Amino acid sequence: MKLGRLNHVGVATPSIESSIAHYRETMRAEVIREPFDLPEQKVKVCFVDTPNSQIELIEPLGEDSPLTNFLAKNPLGGQHHLCFEVPDIDEARAYFEGKGKRILGPTRIGAHGTPIFFLHPKDMEGVLTEIMESPRQAH
Amino acid sequence: MKLGRLNHVGVATPSIESSIAHYRETMRAEVIREPFDLPEQKVKVCFVDTPNSQIELIEPLGEDSPLTNFLAKNPLGGQHHLCFEVPDIDEARAYFEGKGKRILGPTRIGAHGTPIFFLHPKDMEGVLTEIMESPRQAH
Repeated sequence: MKLGRLNHVGVATPSIESSIAHYRETMRAEVIREPFDLPEQKVKVCFVDTPNSQIELIEPLGEDSPLTNFLAKNPLGGQHHLCFEVPDIDEARAYFEGKGKRILGPTRIGAHGTPIFFLHPKDMEGVLTEIMESPRQAH
Repeated sequence: MKLGRLNHVGVATPSIESSIAHYRETMRAEVIREPFDLPEQKVKVCFVDTPNSQIELIEPLGEDSPLTNFLAKNPLGGQHHLCFEVPDIDEARAYFEGKGKRILGPTRIGAHGTPIFFLHPKDMEGVLTEIMESPRQAH
């Protein structure tokens, strides 16, 4: 284990549509990817590229989304999680378990199509942390 | 104006010393830079490098730090702001003012020694946003 790329910053929003307008018209993002549903995580997702990383816009999908509570507390949206890449997800999971860190649910396929898991923010200095296996090809 | 590099994610912490231990021993960061005081912003700062970006650990410096309130609400710390690079800070300031975005205080020298300003999170979809003029040399 070593600290890998900051793959993305997850930013919750009540509306990906209005966030796309914000990133296009105010932040002048040059690459905004096509939004898609990620039903396993109960979120709708849209990646906005910066030259070196990505913003992952996430909107609740359904009423029992894990984002519902976050948006109740932060109606405008806001920073939700940080995602770091690792070369091997199983090795990383065993590593963090060995450190006594709580892992939230099973390893599953994330928004980039590679396996991911989340670490409990209370064990990570208040930062909900996603660990993601790097894609085989650069995105 | 176009969306520039994600220079860093600002992460508030009650103790940079314990956060350095976390990033060194748990996250296995290979490059953790020397902490320093930034009295203008009333914060102590420490940069942790990822291969493509940085985490900026920030701890309150003095009792009237802008972080005091944040840490009262988030005692463990947590994600505080996102910082994007621009080539020209004056042009960027005029651009965001023209968009009707509230700017928090004057343009000032930031943690990387280049001019910065902050945009109000309520005008930025809940994200406290730092705009930073790119260093002339790669850091």
